[in-house]
Amino acid sequence: MTENADVIFIGNKPPMSYVLAIITALSSGASKEITLKARGQAITTAVDVAEIARNRFVKDLKVTKIAIGTAEMPPREGETKSRMVSTMEITLKK
Amino acid sequence: MTENADVIFIGNKPPMSYVLAIITALSSGASKEITLKARGQAITTAVDVAEIARNRFVKDLKVTKIAIGTAEMPPREGETKSRMVSTMEITLKK
Repeated sequence: MTENADVIFIGNKPPMSYVLAIITALSSGASKEITLKARGQAITTAVDVAEIARNRFVKDLKVTKIAIGTAEMPPREGETKSRMVSTMEITLKK
Repeated sequence: MTENADVIFIGNKPPMSYVLAIITALSSGASKEITLKARGQAITTAVDVAEIARNRFVKDLKVTKIAIGTAEMPPREGETKSRMVSTMEITLKK
């Protein structure tokens, strides 16, 4: 993993894939702080991932920051208006 | 509205219903602080609601607190295991 190991983008994989990525990043010793970034429906997954990691696997993991925001997405093919999508960042620290 | 006007439970209605509830609660003058509570897939809706209210309708609305957690849900009919579900609370202040 590179210097970006401390940011994990949450998409539509099962939550456990991301939990595993967190555990891997933490146990490599390179990062003590990990930020999960998600937008749209993946926001729910990001919360699930943080909660599963914290409650079941890394007991001393703390949520240090949660931020929400809005991002503009380019219009889909055949559409003219750009769409607004909610974003979320959860920072976890060991 | 009663003394509970400052807590809005987010379900599966369209986001604008909840945005309207926020605007109503704030303009009644009774509450300056509103907490959105959501769980599961409604978490994404809660973030949408907070962002729409803040960006489009109540410009001086601030997100003062975001908390995530886990709740245990009773097993569904025919199942024996209880399920864990992620929860989220967003506190907005005018």
